[in-house]
Amino acid sequence: MAFGWIDEQAELRRRAGLVRTLRPRPADSPLLDLASNDYLGLARHPEVAEGAVRAARTWGAGATGSRLVTGTTELHAALERELAAFCGFEAALVFSSGYAANLAAVTALAPHGTLVVSDAGNHASLIDGCRLARGTTQVVAHADPEAVRKALATHDGPAVAVSDTVFSVDGDAAPLAALAAACREHGAGLVVDDAHGLGVLGEGGRGAPHAAGLAGADDVVATVTLSKSLGSQGGAVLGPARVVDHLVNAARTFIFDTGLAPAAAGSALAALTLLRREPQRAARAREVAADLYARLTALGLEAVRPHAAVVAVRAPSPEGAVRWAADCRAAGLSVGCFRPPSVPDGISRLRLTARADLSGDQIERAVRVIGETRP
Amino acid sequence: MAFGWIDEQAELRRRAGLVRTLRPRPADSPLLDLASNDYLGLARHPEVAEGAVRAARTWGAGATGSRLVTGTTELHAALERELAAFCGFEAALVFSSGYAANLAAVTALAPHGTLVVSDAGNHASLIDGCRLARGTTQVVAHADPEAVRKALATHDGPAVAVSDTVFSVDGDAAPLAALAAACREHGAGLVVDDAHGLGVLGEGGRGAPHAAGLAGADDVVATVTLSKSLGSQGGAVLGPARVVDHLVNAARTFIFDTGLAPAAAGSALAALTLLRREPQRAARAREVAADLYARLTALGLEAVRPHAAVVAVRAPSPEGAVRWAADCRAAGLSVGCFRPPSVPDGISRLRLTARADLSGDQIERAVRVIGETRP
Repeated sequence: MAFGWIDEQAELRRRAGLVRTLRPRPADSPLLDLASNDYLGLARHPEVAEGAVRAARTWGAGATGSRLVTGTTELHAALERELAAFCGFEAALVFSSGYAANLAAVTALAPHGTLVVSDAGNHASLIDGCRLARGTTQVVAHADPEAVRKALATHDGPAVAVSDTVFSVDGDAAPLAALAAACREHGAGLVVDDAHGLGVLGEGGRGAPHAAGLAGADDVVATVTLSKSLGSQGGAVLGPARVVDHLVNAARTFIFDTGLAPAAAGSALAALTLLRREPQRAARAREVAADLYARLTALGLEAVRPHAAVVAVRAPSPEGAVRWAADCRAAGLSVGCFRPPSVPDGISRLRLTARADLSGDQIERAVRVIGETRP
Repeated sequence: MAFGWIDEQAELRRRAGLVRTLRPRPADSPLLDLASNDYLGLARHPEVAEGAVRAARTWGAGATGSRLVTGTTELHAALERELAAFCGFEAALVFSSGYAANLAAVTALAPHGTLVVSDAGNHASLIDGCRLARGTTQVVAHADPEAVRKALATHDGPAVAVSDTVFSVDGDAAPLAALAAACREHGAGLVVDDAHGLGVLGEGGRGAPHAAGLAGADDVVATVTLSKSLGSQGGAVLGPARVVDHLVNAARTFIFDTGLAPAAAGSALAALTLLRREPQRAARAREVAADLYARLTALGLEAVRPHAAVVAVRAPSPEGAVRWAADCRAAGLSVGCFRPPSVPDGISRLRLTARADLSGDQIERAVRVIGETRP
């Protein structure tokens, strides 16, 4: 029977306790949210939602075509100008998702003959970008500039190093300045995914490349998402104008995809406007993360010191992590639960989001629940 | 210098007349639109735009996380139920784009050891899905069930055939019933991309699989976009519930992407509601296409007989196509211009969209302009 093997795989997953199911949430959930990537609490901010409303009414519900045909509106152009200006890059190109932006950046910047040096902890979308690229990928040890340097030294020709700026699972940071130095020694480009840095790191949330003094450099390309700190949907590639022009001409996930919906572009633009007015949101997210980390480790829990707004707490096993997250939920707290195969090292974790809009009381309650439900 | 090769490629493109640039459009363009994929004219329909407005106000501007964590709202679940019911499938799974849905369907349904038989004219996203899949891909002649049959006969083990239902460039249709028969002889699955069929083909726009009697079959999986006939953004995979459950557990572009923005889900749901009430929109799009084809070929232009709402007119050369499209634009008509490398066969075309809401006068005007500007 067609797809018969699916049932066998489902049975294996069931036995391993690794079945995933969707849990539709209501509009007004009573749960305290430490699970989303809404780092600045902007997804439901009235100004951001009204950015979507205005855009849908002005431009329609969809972009109607590829960005190269009818899918580029003046709203998309305005968002790209503002993203580039805010993050300190020459140009920006907006995609329908961060996943698409990463596929575009890696594939278009690593044609045949290119060496791609990829961090072992990179996000799935960067890994898929490496697999789709015509260049050759070498995976190197996590957050290890010396390993990048060695890999680059093995290759004579165009090369690019690829890394998350903040790794999604543990919330740890890449050594960006050292990575850039290693790349520059070899004339290689650096592509960094700032999905978890934008809005949290750098002055007023301008992101990790800005904080590292790399924004606007002619050998650095950053990708971002509009769906985390900016509370919307979509992704973007930031870099030199010549790189962005190249992507317009060469990136398949740009050329063959429908443009981002106007509502998503409008809400992302509204979020950027708000963030310029309230730059303290970025620092507050980092403070909340430091506070969560200090309180959780004080309880004897094992966590990774957070660099941005993600705090990862280790769980004893996949089943233990699932039960822990379920017990938190029963106590009114929503936390992320990362387990195989979503974690490259096989270690299960609770993943907590240090939202900038969490109050002191909410932080205290979250820590109490996590402590009381620990396996 | 890092990315130095980009300038050489840009120069080659310039010399070949293949430079692509973005042309941001205003909210109220004076151009007559025959270039978008807004087949039913719903992207700017007030009911569809208000679907986005309501959703953004109720659910916020973004889904806030992966569909597996916080990114599944009751709105996503409602959209999935309605998409499945409308198209006649057991279950549906919504993605942030049709591109992501195609990557998911092909990669998750073609693990190691699987043969993927792929039509030579397939969309870029299906091709990238084949390249990312762990199975082995065999590309076969365009719209040729006998070639599919032969390819399947060479393989002992799980297999899947992959095809667009309506091919984007020429608007021609795949021989779905014959493809399904070839697959069934070999116990292979059939994955079809109905991006250009949903809303246009089948009873009331239920799509090409429904029209071919394949909707709901246990060996058929369809993908659709929410960004064409439904005037919104996003994509979906439709199929047996066990296949959808498998994708929830295995598809990387589902697991590692932020959920579709509520506004896009809300407008797609509003478009489906409208299409149920006004099923004649589908037939009208096909009528407009047939009318355009008849009038253009009567002028001696070479076009492909349309099966859905795309009419492709051949141009003498890439430069000729670009000039022709520019002359149409100068005369107030927006048409698509497809040229290498976006066309697999290297033949440049004007691509016209037969929108269901075009009036007789508009069709006449479009045909007159195309005829008068022909190279």
